[in-house]
Amino acid sequence: MMDKNNYCIIMAGGVGSRFWPMSRLSKPKQFLDVLGIGQSLIQMTYNRFKTICPQENIYIVTNAIYKDLVKQQLEGIPEKCIITEPARRNTAPCITYANFKILSENENANIIVAPSDHLILNEAEFLRIVNKALAITKEQNVLVTLGIKPSYPNTGYGYIQYSKEDSMPKDNDIKKVKLFTEKPDIEMAKKFIESGDFLWNAGIFVWSLSAINKALQQYLPEVYNIFLEGMDYYNTEKEESFIDEAYTSCSAISIDYGVMEKAGNVYVIPSDFGWSDVGTWNALYQVREKDANGNSIVGKNVMTYDTKNCIVTMPKDKLVILQGLEEYIVVDSDDILMICKKDEEQRVKQFLTDVEVNTGVEYL
Amino acid sequence: MMDKNNYCIIMAGGVGSRFWPMSRLSKPKQFLDVLGIGQSLIQMTYNRFKTICPQENIYIVTNAIYKDLVKQQLEGIPEKCIITEPARRNTAPCITYANFKILSENENANIIVAPSDHLILNEAEFLRIVNKALAITKEQNVLVTLGIKPSYPNTGYGYIQYSKEDSMPKDNDIKKVKLFTEKPDIEMAKKFIESGDFLWNAGIFVWSLSAINKALQQYLPEVYNIFLEGMDYYNTEKEESFIDEAYTSCSAISIDYGVMEKAGNVYVIPSDFGWSDVGTWNALYQVREKDANGNSIVGKNVMTYDTKNCIVTMPKDKLVILQGLEEYIVVDSDDILMICKKDEEQRVKQFLTDVEVNTGVEYL
Repeated sequence: MMDKNNYCIIMAGGVGSRFWPMSRLSKPKQFLDVLGIGQSLIQMTYNRFKTICPQENIYIVTNAIYKDLVKQQLEGIPEKCIITEPARRNTAPCITYANFKILSENENANIIVAPSDHLILNEAEFLRIVNKALAITKEQNVLVTLGIKPSYPNTGYGYIQYSKEDSMPKDNDIKKVKLFTEKPDIEMAKKFIESGDFLWNAGIFVWSLSAINKALQQYLPEVYNIFLEGMDYYNTEKEESFIDEAYTSCSAISIDYGVMEKAGNVYVIPSDFGWSDVGTWNALYQVREKDANGNSIVGKNVMTYDTKNCIVTMPKDKLVILQGLEEYIVVDSDDILMICKKDEEQRVKQFLTDVEVNTGVEYL
Repeated sequence: MMDKNNYCIIMAGGVGSRFWPMSRLSKPKQFLDVLGIGQSLIQMTYNRFKTICPQENIYIVTNAIYKDLVKQQLEGIPEKCIITEPARRNTAPCITYANFKILSENENANIIVAPSDHLILNEAEFLRIVNKALAITKEQNVLVTLGIKPSYPNTGYGYIQYSKEDSMPKDNDIKKVKLFTEKPDIEMAKKFIESGDFLWNAGIFVWSLSAINKALQQYLPEVYNIFLEGMDYYNTEKEESFIDEAYTSCSAISIDYGVMEKAGNVYVIPSDFGWSDVGTWNALYQVREKDANGNSIVGKNVMTYDTKNCIVTMPKDKLVILQGLEEYIVVDSDDILMICKKDEEQRVKQFLTDVEVNTGVEYL
């Protein structure tokens, strides 16, 4: 039976400039069917949580400009479950705001926080671990995060170090956290992997409303108090103008830096459920279906000749002939075409800057 | 002074499948600004002849479906100067039809016949040679063609062999033709070049109306007689239905094969006026402007990185980022994108066939 105190906060405020021009400011990554399977990442995330929480307990926190996209993509989502931010202030204000919204409804909420734009291939294992975490946080004042067992020394993620000895009394799989670290350089990342006690930080958290609010009050009072002041305004017509002001005075800070690195009651569950942050073209290439020549193609009418290991994303009805390409990203987004070698994908942000300098037009 | 008997027949019936997808059935090569200079090939051709013939003497022979395009692109063209063919029957019927239209207006016409989709870089030299030819054909019953002095053993053109000894009595530059040949293989082409008496057949002819009609009557009576029967219908409302039937009964035959290879009064002027038939992507690349990296780009917003010797044709307002491409053809035609190595361009026709087989849609 689904516990009515289970809640979910899905963070969906990103603008996804790394996947430009597939991802645009008007429709960033979380709203795209990046796998070409007929569902966007946020749709997959939302559906995944429907088996854990009642639908009316799944909250989406997103930028105000994406409210209509959310409504359109998440069928049956209650209006009250779309929390809109007037500005981007990283994860701590986002979570705090959502906490107060939930508090006004259910002070016994037990919450999973997750990004909207990650992929999880082994859903059964994911649900098993989340339910294990929820069972703990329901009873105890702890902050639990899911850490991904790393497969190679990635330098694009933060890492979590856990204590090999120290775990939950009743569950040896739930480890005490020793350290949160930022993105390491490659040498450091290699050491992390060798040590065997480092996990990738996937930004997935499980905690009771009271536990996280206690931690926020203690470690981030400057954020917590701003939202506390709005206590009387949530779910009233005064909420919007209060929030506009609150976000203006709030600084951008991550929940990792603001709370998790400081709190003493932080645990991690080492996890392996086919996770990908789908954060780069190469990561997307890894998880997308590929043909016999290693081409991963989204688009109905794409024909390839002498073409290998390319990742291709085309508008549905565009007819595309590719001859003699190897290891390229080929993306057409109607008014933009980008062709770039896969191993040069980090230059996309530079292209975007150059475009804006050259054309004087904001193309994100 | 412009001679009022000077006429021009511009042949504009091609469908230009070699430049697909830049060139489409709905707007083939002759109607495209392939150089990106603001003028289509047919506009350049038309303007070139305006200095030789009165505008009302310049006839365009094209497929009926292109009538509107011709009107739109050739400002001020009189309605009577657009001759539409109901079907494609190669050059002999096309020229014969135009001859009869002109005959009904001026039996003393002195005519230049030229394709609509070639490029001539040295217009002054071209005009000098055309005027020289017109001066001859005005007086004498001869068929003159302009042969291009070849620069390399091209296997895509027909060749004209001239007599080194035998020329016009008064003009040693106008040579008696010995032989018209079809496209040679590479060995043969090399021999042609070495011999020094072979020229490229550019499909440009100069003759008086009476000379060409005499030749047609003698060598192609089966075509000539079909159009002769319509004598009373030209420029009447019965013309269209007569022509529909005439084309149905006419076989496709080139003027080269039907007349030029057989007639005894054929002369050629060896010419060098910067001619290109712009018949392949590589030929187009040769004549288009290129940047410092050898990229020839048509399109307002195309940015290149590590990209060399490419030929790029994009819709005007498309933003395009190309990284890491060398020696490619990159063409976007709104609903079609083609990327193909320059040295594989001969495969374009195969792509088009494959597309039609795979999609069941006619994409030309």
